[in-house]
Amino acid sequence: MIIVFTGNGKGKTTASLGQAVRTVGRGENVLMIQFIKGPWKSGEDFIDIIPRGGKGKFELHKMGKGFVGILGDKLPREDHERAAEEALTYFKKELTKDWKLIILDEINNAIKLELITVESVLEILKDVPDDTFVILTGRDAPQAFIDRADLVTEMKEIKHPFNDGKLAEIAMEF
Amino acid sequence: MIIVFTGNGKGKTTASLGQAVRTVGRGENVLMIQFIKGPWKSGEDFIDIIPRGGKGKFELHKMGKGFVGILGDKLPREDHERAAEEALTYFKKELTKDWKLIILDEINNAIKLELITVESVLEILKDVPDDTFVILTGRDAPQAFIDRADLVTEMKEIKHPFNDGKLAEIAMEF
Repeated sequence: MIIVFTGNGKGKTTASLGQAVRTVGRGENVLMIQFIKGPWKSGEDFIDIIPRGGKGKFELHKMGKGFVGILGDKLPREDHERAAEEALTYFKKELTKDWKLIILDEINNAIKLELITVESVLEILKDVPDDTFVILTGRDAPQAFIDRADLVTEMKEIKHPFNDGKLAEIAMEF
Repeated sequence: MIIVFTGNGKGKTTASLGQAVRTVGRGENVLMIQFIKGPWKSGEDFIDIIPRGGKGKFELHKMGKGFVGILGDKLPREDHERAAEEALTYFKKELTKDWKLIILDEINNAIKLELITVESVLEILKDVPDDTFVILTGRDAPQAFIDRADLVTEMKEIKHPFNDGKLAEIAMEF
């Protein structure tokens, strides 16, 4: 089953993390592959999700090289492309293993930045069994992903405290 | 800071769970109060979120009595009202303690079902410090919550496999 979390609002990666919690809670295994996020740390890097029943695990693989072309990025574009392609190859390999849920975090952005192609992703998605969940996150999901997906939610920004200095800072942290 | 996750799509409670993961990961404490969900179990009941740094905890308090007026609910309405009021009183008490994030799960639904009033919630929200996060979830958030909130995301359903028997079942489980 293919799920897309897209839109310009907060909650896409966050919802997929929440889904990871639920799935591990049911004793199943979850793999999260981050396509864009780089070597710095956010909250999810510092936790272990421990199922009380003793079964189920969560693994996070950060395969992105950070923001592309902005915020002081000095990496050659080919490095970003190679990283995204490697993430995709890794996904293909792991799809044959015992994961109930695989999260392709920010893959929509990797497409938008033309680091990988829609077609290369669709080709791999053909092999996803019905009872394996794959979540694709990132704003501006390509229409082909939406067409292919079984469940799509748009996280739509209604309000964000960008214009309030103090609150904007707190919101960034959040 | 007040956050609202609303809309008819999947991802509201899930995103707040994901935010719990991130916050615990940063060594802070998270309390989730469920206003509607009942005594049955879902994935989040079976996990512990363990911060590698040794600080930060996640607590889940299920204070709802299950679905109201549907799915074989036989409880007197007053029992549901009392449960929702108790959840609100509990929130008010815990607001003075060391929680970085408090999730009021399905509180929008409790309002819609008229178990508690918008005004009683707004009154307590006055006491939320800027650097404490309170997330209100549930579809059909009252406009007064949206007006009061600093950050609002609408989780909008674009696609859901309701009409495919097998996939609908898998989606329920998800």
